[in-house]
Amino acid sequence: MVEPEVFLAMGREVLAQQGFSQMLGAELTAFGPGRCELQLVLRDDMKQQNGFAHGGVLSYLADNALTFAGGSALQAPVLTSEFKINYVRPGVGERLIVRAEALALSKTQAVCRCEVFALLAGEEKLCALAQGTIVKQS
Amino acid sequence: MVEPEVFLAMGREVLAQQGFSQMLGAELTAFGPGRCELQLVLRDDMKQQNGFAHGGVLSYLADNALTFAGGSALQAPVLTSEFKINYVRPGVGERLIVRAEALALSKTQAVCRCEVFALLAGEEKLCALAQGTIVKQS
Amino acid sequence: MVEPEVFLAMGREVLAQQGFSQMLGAELTAFGPGRCELQLVLRDDMKQQNGFAHGGVLSYLADNALTFAGGSALQAPVLTSEFKINYVRPGVGERLIVRAEALALSKTQAVCRCEVFALLAGEEKLCALAQGTIVKQS
Amino acid sequence: MVEPEVFLAMGREVLAQQGFSQMLGAELTAFGPGRCELQLVLRDDMKQQNGFAHGGVLSYLADNALTFAGGSALQAPVLTSEFKINYVRPGVGERLIVRAEALALSKTQAVCRCEVFALLAGEEKLCALAQGTIVKQS
Repeated sequence: MVEPEVFLAMGREVLAQQGFSQMLGAELTAFGPGRCELQLVLRDDMKQQNGFAHGGVLSYLADNALTFAGGSALQAPVLTSEFKINYVRPGVGERLIVRAEALALSKTQAVCRCEVFALLAGEEKLCALAQGTIVKQS
Repeated sequence: MVEPEVFLAMGREVLAQQGFSQMLGAELTAFGPGRCELQLVLRDDMKQQNGFAHGGVLSYLADNALTFAGGSALQAPVLTSEFKINYVRPGVGERLIVRAEALALSKTQAVCRCEVFALLAGEEKLCALAQGTIVKQS
Repeated sequence: MVEPEVFLAMGREVLAQQGFSQMLGAELTAFGPGRCELQLVLRDDMKQQNGFAHGGVLSYLADNALTFAGGSALQAPVLTSEFKINYVRPGVGERLIVRAEALALSKTQAVCRCEVFALLAGEEKLCALAQGTIVKQS
Repeated sequence: MVEPEVFLAMGREVLAQQGFSQMLGAELTAFGPGRCELQLVLRDDMKQQNGFAHGGVLSYLADNALTFAGGSALQAPVLTSEFKINYVRPGVGERLIVRAEALALSKTQAVCRCEVFALLAGEEKLCALAQGTIVKQS
């Protein structure tokens, strides 16, 4: 069994190799078999024309969190096959947080769900919900 | 009726107000009622650990293209309600291109589809397909 | 506030008016604001060529459960706008059970999730997961 | 190469083995590599409380059409992994028709799309659009 801090360090190493995640300043704040939490500071260059987080930033967080949750559940190199996301509230706040979980695991894939929150004045508000499929690289 | 070049100029004005789109260097290369094309140069800071376009960049393009197609079909300020995306090939190339179309229009919403392509050595390769709902702001 | 048994009776009245639900023998076994449970006996005329529950039966259960959960959360006549479903295990058993919940509620819509289980020899097995949008009729 | 009429006959044989499809009276009206058309007569026992086709009937058609399109593209026994469906108009008419197509094919999966129409007084009206993943049985 992998120690929690080793697991987290391994996840952070992968994240550090993602140019896009580095550019966005994403941090892996929790990581274990079948679950993860990512956070980023919401900067102005991540917004759309109304000053809210761009949908593409929320979908990036969902995509990446589902992949980390699925990859850690499958314990293998993975690909994100697909996901769907529902936006339910404008992303307004200092920080965005996503938490993902693998809910159904087979030998070849994990179906995962996640929720994206905006942290505003210390309170988390649900902004988006996603569900998707992570598959083992063949 | 709005002249095509006026329509395109209006769309580019919206895109110019999106900090995230500016940071990614997205260009609106075609825009008309119910359809749009966006492009961006695939930079290293848009990649994941294997050197492919990060899924979050493809989902950004899908999100934004669906919204522009839906907004131009509804001719009103809109929100992206939801979408689903299937990734079908790693994003490898100099440039990413997305084309979206509104397929079903009502008074309050447009259901749109799009395809994301990677341009490699002059050839477009289909990387992702998405379908989603754009709603009028109430 | 509506008494739980009155709420359930109201839901059953709606279900009784759905010809398709009657034909499939669906029962509303729990119903409250923002949540519901439906069950049906898995008959041979609900199967596909391998003897499993047809995907269309699982998607019927998901569709209906999401709609009941969303409608009871919104407390208004509703339409199912869209949903996505992931199939994770063949539907094998005597009975299918779906449980749905509204997770994000606004004035006009509810985003809901559900899980579909097959009951085999007293044990529930997760067969499908869905997420979708229920909107108020305008 | 398989002759078109042989292909269609093979598809009809599979459909005939689906108890659910038989019960609903679904007919395979066109079938070729990567595409199919299914139809059914809209009966009262396929409706919901407002007299429209139940969403579950539309989702059955989408599910089955995506699977036939994907299976015929992959030319192998398949499973439906997932799909998403958007409902855009109440299903009102004498007959429902679905047409599906495989758009992205790999060795192990096909990503397919379909549209569901209601036939009313000789005119087809778009009722639902779906997109999903069909995978080879491993």
